[in-house]
Amino acid sequence: MTLTDIAPDDNQEVEAAASTTIYVCITCRRASDPEDDVRPGLLLARATARAAEGTGVTVRQVRCLANCSRALSAAIRRDDAWTYVFGGLDADRDAAALIDGAKLFARAGDGLMPWRGRPEILKRGLIARVPPIDFEEDSE
Amino acid sequence: MTLTDIAPDDNQEVEAAASTTIYVCITCRRASDPEDDVRPGLLLARATARAAEGTGVTVRQVRCLANCSRALSAAIRRDDAWTYVFGGLDADRDAAALIDGAKLFARAGDGLMPWRGRPEILKRGLIARVPPIDFEEDSE
Repeated sequence: MTLTDIAPDDNQEVEAAASTTIYVCITCRRASDPEDDVRPGLLLARATARAAEGTGVTVRQVRCLANCSRALSAAIRRDDAWTYVFGGLDADRDAAALIDGAKLFARAGDGLMPWRGRPEILKRGLIARVPPIDFEEDSE
Repeated sequence: MTLTDIAPDDNQEVEAAASTTIYVCITCRRASDPEDDVRPGLLLARATARAAEGTGVTVRQVRCLANCSRALSAAIRRDDAWTYVFGGLDADRDAAALIDGAKLFARAGDGLMPWRGRPEILKRGLIARVPPIDFEEDSE
């Protein structure tokens, strides 16, 4: 049992996480994968959906995030916050990291996914981020 | 003079384009650029803002789209449509392409930037795309 298991704010965590959606690209495959096999992107999407159970995080499938050269791919988005695109994901390994990243992001007050505490694969696999709608920099 | 110059629907074009925003990363530089020079990303942002005049397209500056390894970077977003991230842009060359892409996108009924007619740099420089909020695939 960890501290998290007995934290009194589990419900708050689930509520916060509910604003967060992970889109997993189900068309992703590696160049060496046979065309007619189940796509590893679909396997990652299914694993992520299982890992999301009870967390409040929404997992959706999407056909092509256009990050094909650095597959497998997923995006994490939160209302009124930045959107993140990740690549180099592995279907057998990274579902939990996506959920952990989404939960970390859900708790961030500034709309940015914290670097500290972010799963390693969501650091080295960061492809791009996009600001929320109506975002404006303060100045040049 | 081209057909576009005399098209009667110029106002409609400007109105449609007004839903479209280009975010240009102003922190982008190449590894070979001196630290203290004006960042080429900022030059691209300024050139794009000039190219946008009269088109209806909004151009905003943003600090870091996290596409540093494939700079210069810009994102194009439209309300209720997909968001696109582009890389490999050039400050002296690609402002007009960003505006042309944004206008093409603004006219698209399906919320996707058409491949046909898209400026070449927005094809080969495509880094990723992210679906609109509440997007759902029909099925696996």
